[in-house]
Amino acid sequence: MSQLDGPAFHRIPPWVKAKLSPTAIEKIQKVHNFVETECIPAEPIMKAQIAEVGKRWTTQPLMHELRQKAKTAGLFNLFLPSHFKESPGLTNLEYSCCAEIMGRVYWAQQTMNCHAPETGNIELLAKYCTPEQKKKWLQPLLDGTASSAYSMTEPDVASSDATQIGCRITKEGDKYVINGRKLFGNCMWNSENKFYILMGCSDPYNPNKWARHSMVIVPTNTPGITQVRNLTIMGYDHAPEGHGEYIYEDVRVPLENIILGEGRAFEIAQGRLGPGRIHHCMRLIGQCERAYELALVRCIDPRKTPRGKLIGQFDSNIERIAQMRLEIDQARLVVLNAADTMDIHGNKAGRYAIAQSKILVPNMATRIIDECMQLYGGQGLTQHTQLPEMWTYARFVRIADGPDSAHRHQVGRDELKTAEKYAKRNREYQRRYKALAEKMGQKYETFE
Amino acid sequence: MSQLDGPAFHRIPPWVKAKLSPTAIEKIQKVHNFVETECIPAEPIMKAQIAEVGKRWTTQPLMHELRQKAKTAGLFNLFLPSHFKESPGLTNLEYSCCAEIMGRVYWAQQTMNCHAPETGNIELLAKYCTPEQKKKWLQPLLDGTASSAYSMTEPDVASSDATQIGCRITKEGDKYVINGRKLFGNCMWNSENKFYILMGCSDPYNPNKWARHSMVIVPTNTPGITQVRNLTIMGYDHAPEGHGEYIYEDVRVPLENIILGEGRAFEIAQGRLGPGRIHHCMRLIGQCERAYELALVRCIDPRKTPRGKLIGQFDSNIERIAQMRLEIDQARLVVLNAADTMDIHGNKAGRYAIAQSKILVPNMATRIIDECMQLYGGQGLTQHTQLPEMWTYARFVRIADGPDSAHRHQVGRDELKTAEKYAKRNREYQRRYKALAEKMGQKYETFE
Amino acid sequence: MSQLDGPAFHRIPPWVKAKLSPTAIEKIQKVHNFVETECIPAEPIMKAQIAEVGKRWTTQPLMHELRQKAKTAGLFNLFLPSHFKESPGLTNLEYSCCAEIMGRVYWAQQTMNCHAPETGNIELLAKYCTPEQKKKWLQPLLDGTASSAYSMTEPDVASSDATQIGCRITKEGDKYVINGRKLFGNCMWNSENKFYILMGCSDPYNPNKWARHSMVIVPTNTPGITQVRNLTIMGYDHAPEGHGEYIYEDVRVPLENIILGEGRAFEIAQGRLGPGRIHHCMRLIGQCERAYELALVRCIDPRKTPRGKLIGQFDSNIERIAQMRLEIDQARLVVLNAADTMDIHGNKAGRYAIAQSKILVPNMATRIIDECMQLYGGQGLTQHTQLPEMWTYARFVRIADGPDSAHRHQVGRDELKTAEKYAKRNREYQRRYKALAEKMGQKYETFE
Amino acid sequence: MSQLDGPAFHRIPPWVKAKLSPTAIEKIQKVHNFVETECIPAEPIMKAQIAEVGKRWTTQPLMHELRQKAKTAGLFNLFLPSHFKESPGLTNLEYSCCAEIMGRVYWAQQTMNCHAPETGNIELLAKYCTPEQKKKWLQPLLDGTASSAYSMTEPDVASSDATQIGCRITKEGDKYVINGRKLFGNCMWNSENKFYILMGCSDPYNPNKWARHSMVIVPTNTPGITQVRNLTIMGYDHAPEGHGEYIYEDVRVPLENIILGEGRAFEIAQGRLGPGRIHHCMRLIGQCERAYELALVRCIDPRKTPRGKLIGQFDSNIERIAQMRLEIDQARLVVLNAADTMDIHGNKAGRYAIAQSKILVPNMATRIIDECMQLYGGQGLTQHTQLPEMWTYARFVRIADGPDSAHRHQVGRDELKTAEKYAKRNREYQRRYKALAEKMGQKYETFE
Repeated sequence: MSQLDGPAFHRIPPWVKAKLSPTAIEKIQKVHNFVETECIPAEPIMKAQIAEVGKRWTTQPLMHELRQKAKTAGLFNLFLPSHFKESPGLTNLEYSCCAEIMGRVYWAQQTMNCHAPETGNIELLAKYCTPEQKKKWLQPLLDGTASSAYSMTEPDVASSDATQIGCRITKEGDKYVINGRKLFGNCMWNSENKFYILMGCSDPYNPNKWARHSMVIVPTNTPGITQVRNLTIMGYDHAPEGHGEYIYEDVRVPLENIILGEGRAFEIAQGRLGPGRIHHCMRLIGQCERAYELALVRCIDPRKTPRGKLIGQFDSNIERIAQMRLEIDQARLVVLNAADTMDIHGNKAGRYAIAQSKILVPNMATRIIDECMQLYGGQGLTQHTQLPEMWTYARFVRIADGPDSAHRHQVGRDELKTAEKYAKRNREYQRRYKALAEKMGQKYETFE
Repeated sequence: MSQLDGPAFHRIPPWVKAKLSPTAIEKIQKVHNFVETECIPAEPIMKAQIAEVGKRWTTQPLMHELRQKAKTAGLFNLFLPSHFKESPGLTNLEYSCCAEIMGRVYWAQQTMNCHAPETGNIELLAKYCTPEQKKKWLQPLLDGTASSAYSMTEPDVASSDATQIGCRITKEGDKYVINGRKLFGNCMWNSENKFYILMGCSDPYNPNKWARHSMVIVPTNTPGITQVRNLTIMGYDHAPEGHGEYIYEDVRVPLENIILGEGRAFEIAQGRLGPGRIHHCMRLIGQCERAYELALVRCIDPRKTPRGKLIGQFDSNIERIAQMRLEIDQARLVVLNAADTMDIHGNKAGRYAIAQSKILVPNMATRIIDECMQLYGGQGLTQHTQLPEMWTYARFVRIADGPDSAHRHQVGRDELKTAEKYAKRNREYQRRYKALAEKMGQKYETFE
Repeated sequence: MSQLDGPAFHRIPPWVKAKLSPTAIEKIQKVHNFVETECIPAEPIMKAQIAEVGKRWTTQPLMHELRQKAKTAGLFNLFLPSHFKESPGLTNLEYSCCAEIMGRVYWAQQTMNCHAPETGNIELLAKYCTPEQKKKWLQPLLDGTASSAYSMTEPDVASSDATQIGCRITKEGDKYVINGRKLFGNCMWNSENKFYILMGCSDPYNPNKWARHSMVIVPTNTPGITQVRNLTIMGYDHAPEGHGEYIYEDVRVPLENIILGEGRAFEIAQGRLGPGRIHHCMRLIGQCERAYELALVRCIDPRKTPRGKLIGQFDSNIERIAQMRLEIDQARLVVLNAADTMDIHGNKAGRYAIAQSKILVPNMATRIIDECMQLYGGQGLTQHTQLPEMWTYARFVRIADGPDSAHRHQVGRDELKTAEKYAKRNREYQRRYKALAEKMGQKYETFE
Repeated sequence: MSQLDGPAFHRIPPWVKAKLSPTAIEKIQKVHNFVETECIPAEPIMKAQIAEVGKRWTTQPLMHELRQKAKTAGLFNLFLPSHFKESPGLTNLEYSCCAEIMGRVYWAQQTMNCHAPETGNIELLAKYCTPEQKKKWLQPLLDGTASSAYSMTEPDVASSDATQIGCRITKEGDKYVINGRKLFGNCMWNSENKFYILMGCSDPYNPNKWARHSMVIVPTNTPGITQVRNLTIMGYDHAPEGHGEYIYEDVRVPLENIILGEGRAFEIAQGRLGPGRIHHCMRLIGQCERAYELALVRCIDPRKTPRGKLIGQFDSNIERIAQMRLEIDQARLVVLNAADTMDIHGNKAGRYAIAQSKILVPNMATRIIDECMQLYGGQGLTQHTQLPEMWTYARFVRIADGPDSAHRHQVGRDELKTAEKYAKRNREYQRRYKALAEKMGQKYETFE
């Protein structure tokens, strides 16, 4: 099929191409076209609209326009896996190919309603909400008429260990009352942001520490929420969505806003983060591809000829280009394998493969985008290219949902549980060696 | 299928499992059993046999015995891809799974007649020889009754750039006369080594530099060949196969010993190296798994409790274990993808994916085995474990067939040829942005 | 001397302490006190003043106040080496100790009139200007009543190879007329910025390419200069100083504004950059110390106990802390040795040691500050700590004055000039070995 | 002083040159001459002598000859610091300059009686022995008529934590009886090896775990010692000195063989290792210089021109050469600073600086020698150069005296003890900021 040789499919490995459904092929192609023609050329426009005085926390008109276009073109909510009835029908593997393309522009995901934290929230609401809740909270998100945030991280505990989350949820009459401090839920200064899914502690003395927490829906306009400031990420305010720092003081929400039931936050959280991590990682790969293309372009810029040679004529840069190429492609294989594992064995069985992506990909991406900046000299750090924003996004993903060390720690602990199996196997080797030595009349030697 | 959940298939990713034929599943299982029960326990025996006085360059009796066993069990020549009529029927992807298992013991490949340089030579002879040549030279290799070597590297030129190979092949009457120096063909002190496939320069002034070289078969016992010394690799002599340093002085072979015809060495060489690189890389991954298992075992060794904790109770080591796990699995995906690409699109189209393996895997392997040694403390460098030999093999593969920098250089140059395409695409983005800015009445800004 | 055991001298190695003059000891102590009590606590104030609406490009009142204090305290211009008559009397080595301390706050250097690019400009003007020029341009800088910028980098050439600088300087009557584009000279939106020292091409066809360029002083308010935009560095605008992007169109300055004479830019440039690089590097080390202290503080933050342990109780973090400590201290030895070499043998002889600092220190600093951010989890990327700004400064220094690859290239080329000496020495070893082998009746072996 | 410009002093930084005494200058020059003319050219001879049949564990005749020459030339025992009466009068800093030169040949140290473990043993005996013991055991070592070993590492515990050493020393009548297993003391197959200094546990139930161990002198020929095998290091047997694996079974030595007294092993051990680590590190730097020179020579080898360029004409290799140069020089500054710190403040105060060398230098050295091997292509791993042996020595030093992770751990724990000081300082900054904000009428903001 010749379409699969086109640029939209250029970097997809053969084994993945062979698994793409006709629907997926069509969607991937359309996402490619949309990003290439509607998004990338519009980057400076989007920036200019947000820079207008007094518009910093207002979603750009162009964003509304592009979202409408994408929706009409059937490109909304592609991330929602095919087992949801609301799904447009792609597998995780197939959507991953779309996500890479979206990653080429920081905000393209949003035009197609496939952006964090929306994706995680939509999947959560689709999976755990009652029909009434779905109608009220999920449908507007799916339709793209409202936006939501996720409120979990806290400054006062080590919230990467979520059992420590301390924000209190207390039942008083027909309300839950919330008190605590939170970091990183999207900014409430943007009026599109309609509600938070908040994780808090509703039963602090429950002997089962996995049953102490609950998740509730908190409308943004509920009295008692104060946004202390917008948190910058490496200096970027990420307007108009931003990242808020919040104080919750006696914030009251109706009892019906609880998700799944009291004490069931971990049951919910379990499934939430996996797919989102894969999406982040595939978008990072798309960013890396774009950064890499910029590096290639710099390599042949006829104006730049230090010591009389093009940047790309230096052997050292030729090797750098190659190393980037190799590492981006290696990372893609990791993420696609994780997506495929999720499709075949489910999110839970895919936990290891997801962690593998989460740890390896953002590290690769920061290194590679950094190298691309370096190829641009001083200009590489300025707004002359998208590279600084790309690097910052990769750096953010490296820490979002917990530092890579925490994830490595988890993987390592799981692995150590298998050690005894190998010790036993080694003792068996030794036993057989001994028998063999005796049989062959050879000296039996021990090394320990 | 529950067999696919067993230890022989434990590390194979889902997408690969789904592609395995029943034959492949059977062979993989048998290779696993053979390596686990016949090879690993026999390691010290094999070492002891080679250490006997006066036996250094004689193939060990146990090797002969195990080769016989493997042959009988239908485990010979598994590497030979299914499109050869002599093939036992595995694809490159399927054989890769076997090669990983063989890699657990340095010499297990040899018991199954799947060892370098034999594999490359067999494939070469199978592909390019006349029926007469096949009968005389190929069949004994396939039967395992003779052994061969490959003679290409030279000390007097940069032979990683094979067009520089200078060893002269001159036609005189009914003979080719060979003069030159060579490095690294297996040691002729081992009497099983029956012939070399030698690459030399037969037409030095041919204007087409790709048509200057030929390959000829040189029997080991031909007068005029002197082995100056056995070359050690990081101190290891790799007996009883070794690596010779040779002088060829007026070495005469019959004209019928030419392969494919004069001046066609590059035509032949093109196809030779790819699969071998993949085999090396998969074996390295098998070695890494074994090193990794040894590291896990050390982590729970009850005798080793610095500061009162097991090695595996230190968070730093937990993170190290995780990082190893992640990187080995990442590398496997790279090699399996390369094998699959070769299966689908052929060796030539797989060139990039092969180079990707060749560059990334040995680097990963040396790093990881080194880390495993470090976890063993001083003992890790001694003969108490197989780790030093594993490291040395990985280090060797990193340089064999040319240093990684040469391969990166090749990849980089290929990539730079695509730069203009991206430059053009960027100009197109710019053009569209300009149109959009005009349409929307926005200032058009340039950044360059 | 017990003062040398105090915190101001804590990290200074013994050999450097032994070389400090009483004056230096006094100054270092005073700089320490000033930074600790006047600068660090005032960081949020300084930020708040610049954030006030309409004040973005106005030097903060607090900066003026602190500069006055520092001047009164005798802390102005400490960087100017003791061989200048305008110098307060410190050697490069002694000033380096001050620069490290200043580095603890990004802007502390400015309070003591020791900030880039002022330091380079002052040294340049002090060394090469006529008494009249000095009175007009240098004295206000030394007094701190004016500020200046340096204008060299260009977008249209590879200006890291300064011979390519293309901005034209043409003599017309009693004026030099300047035309071209420049990047990175401080922002002219700040009214304190009084003049540029601009490097341009005055004699493009001179056969000696080192004689084609000149340096002229260009007052900021000269007609024809347009600041296109302020260049951000990784998103930071670095207000109120900034980095401008400029167009020069028929900018006319009097002939007397030339420095040293036409065609002598390289003579001037040669000496300019060395000390500045050392200052940058020592400040980065001061920053790293501050980042490191923040990491230590995080390690014992009682609120942060993932899995029940303080951050600093994880062995992995204990090792990270150690590695940071070791590398910061290693880097300091490199920079101090460079400063000492400049003191003893002059800036030119110190060229290698300066390059060594320039290449190694910013790389170390970005890595280490990045690691500190990681220890802070998600918060580490926000404005909750100074870490993101520190990282950005280190990243900037890694590219300022040319990417590290360009500097490595220069060092490498110089080194390769020594290769023949070692080849000769090796041949001599071989000759002696041969004689020895003959004398001792041993076989002479060659390895090549 | 022009001598200081000569090759013997070429890499010594200015601040060290200024500290060299006339004696030191003379010794450094003589060591340089001895290594350049007597040692390096004799390398193949030394190898050939050890390779003779039946001579593997006999010290080479050439070694005896060179030791005699070095002794006559006043080059014996240079390592012994000037505060010992037996010292030839060099400081640690001065000797370090000699040690670097000795490092150029693996065994040059031994020709000058400055080799491990002799140096540590001599210093130990000189510091802690009675006059009678000194006469019997120390004097022959100083004279070079006997050789000794150090016996500490054990396979059955984590002996990098020396309090765990389990080899039993029991007093029975007028003897100490020793039972246990030991790794790594030099090989007793070499008849020059006259005694071990053995660390064992004499009082296992002493509540003070630092008082449980003793050191005794054990003559090699004492009955009950069995050498199980010679331990190889990455395959090298390091003959004729080697590394033994030992069983002690009822080994009896006279009570007078105890050093300092029972239970005082840690008192002794404390001082033993520091200087030896510095010597190892400086020798590694000498090795790196030699490896680096070989790399430079390869760079201009006219036979090696891949793609038509010399190895040293590839920009990538130019950068590699530079990076090696920079890192070797950086490492030297670290070690020299450690030696200087020991001279000024004593071994104990120098503990951190010693650890810094111990951790950073072997890591640097393995990386750099590995890179040099890579520049030599396949040949780089063979006996054609000294590089494989150099790498192995560096790898060994990286693990000898405990893995680098153990040393980092120690440094990290010491550093964390300082964390509270910085936490306090940060609270003080905060307090002052608050006061300042109030004074200036500014909003007080907290970030935590």
